[in-house]
Amino acid sequence: MRVEKDLLAKNDRHAAANRKWLADREVTMVNLMASPGAGKTSLLVQTLEDLQAEMPFAVIEGDQQTSLDAHRIRACGVPAVQINTGRGCHLDAHQVGHALADLDPAPGSVVWVENVGNLVCPAGFDLGEHARVVLLSVTEGDDKPLKYPHMFHSADLVVLTKTDLLPYVDFDVDRCIDHARRLRPGVPVLQVSVKSGEGMAQWYGWLRAQRPVPAAEVG
Amino acid sequence: MRVEKDLLAKNDRHAAANRKWLADREVTMVNLMASPGAGKTSLLVQTLEDLQAEMPFAVIEGDQQTSLDAHRIRACGVPAVQINTGRGCHLDAHQVGHALADLDPAPGSVVWVENVGNLVCPAGFDLGEHARVVLLSVTEGDDKPLKYPHMFHSADLVVLTKTDLLPYVDFDVDRCIDHARRLRPGVPVLQVSVKSGEGMAQWYGWLRAQRPVPAAEVG
Repeated sequence: MRVEKDLLAKNDRHAAANRKWLADREVTMVNLMASPGAGKTSLLVQTLEDLQAEMPFAVIEGDQQTSLDAHRIRACGVPAVQINTGRGCHLDAHQVGHALADLDPAPGSVVWVENVGNLVCPAGFDLGEHARVVLLSVTEGDDKPLKYPHMFHSADLVVLTKTDLLPYVDFDVDRCIDHARRLRPGVPVLQVSVKSGEGMAQWYGWLRAQRPVPAAEVG
Repeated sequence: MRVEKDLLAKNDRHAAANRKWLADREVTMVNLMASPGAGKTSLLVQTLEDLQAEMPFAVIEGDQQTSLDAHRIRACGVPAVQINTGRGCHLDAHQVGHALADLDPAPGSVVWVENVGNLVCPAGFDLGEHARVVLLSVTEGDDKPLKYPHMFHSADLVVLTKTDLLPYVDFDVDRCIDHARRLRPGVPVLQVSVKSGEGMAQWYGWLRAQRPVPAAEVG
């Protein structure tokens, strides 16, 4: 459809501008995507609490309505901008560009984008991010990668969340990983529970590897 | 946006045609909407198994990709049409109209529409259905009605699913119901677990009340 193509081309121009803006400031941006209630905010809040002494953070929160998540982030002492999309089903690069300017993150920062809870629409919109993390709660079922292929095809990391609930649900971890890797060959998959702490060290290891090596540490 | 308005007006015309088609045949259509993995298909399969001797069923399945759900439905002996939306994030009334013609349900049937797993986009598209059922798994968090207001505003019934998992998650049922009723005053809310059987009798009671009283039983 013509309109859709124009919309995506416009988004791509804004995404390219965001990418340059981030590179100029040595800021890393990570786009968190998932179904509603997969545990994006809980993982984010725990990460901010554990690592904010190690690296500066800022957060862009996307929701149809409410500022509940931005309040939770700010309660950790981390700056956050809330974008309410109204009837919109995803964040776009133009909205994120404005939020970046508002946040004005320090060099070396990690900016998190918590996208609107939706396994469909956010997949189509490049925000200029360095990495896309797709969360999938083990309560959602191991067939979800096959049913939402565009999202999983675009993932740089898949995080299986709420693994503390595995004893109570029918979820085959190996099958799910196999499904995800059919769509994105070799994609790393972490198994994480914010509640039990399982997998958090691996998650932090992944995050540290995304940041550029600070100039002082090179050579 | 002009394009969006034209799209919705076109959808509304198809929805009106579906409504007339269903009324002429005394067929009841119920639109099931929820996040991915909230348990729509599991509730549907159990319902078909328990009630298909009592009333004729047919199913329209919406997914971005795969026919997994239609296979599960047909395994119960119930006719199903699978619509793959590709990059699309919801079913529309035109697609559903074609599926109804393909299914050609008998008078007195209940046609289920299992929409694409998505708490955002399907809310905006009238399919000509008699009732909209919004499912929310207790693993998703009790704040979801506030964050996805358009979906809950449009609900004729809210079903809280997977209540067998309540002991293992932080979910305040009363608060969730309060949130849902702020958006849709008085909306009935059922608490259901397909696994334990909790609430299934109430769910079947609700369903029976949606069907027109057969002519033979009137007067």
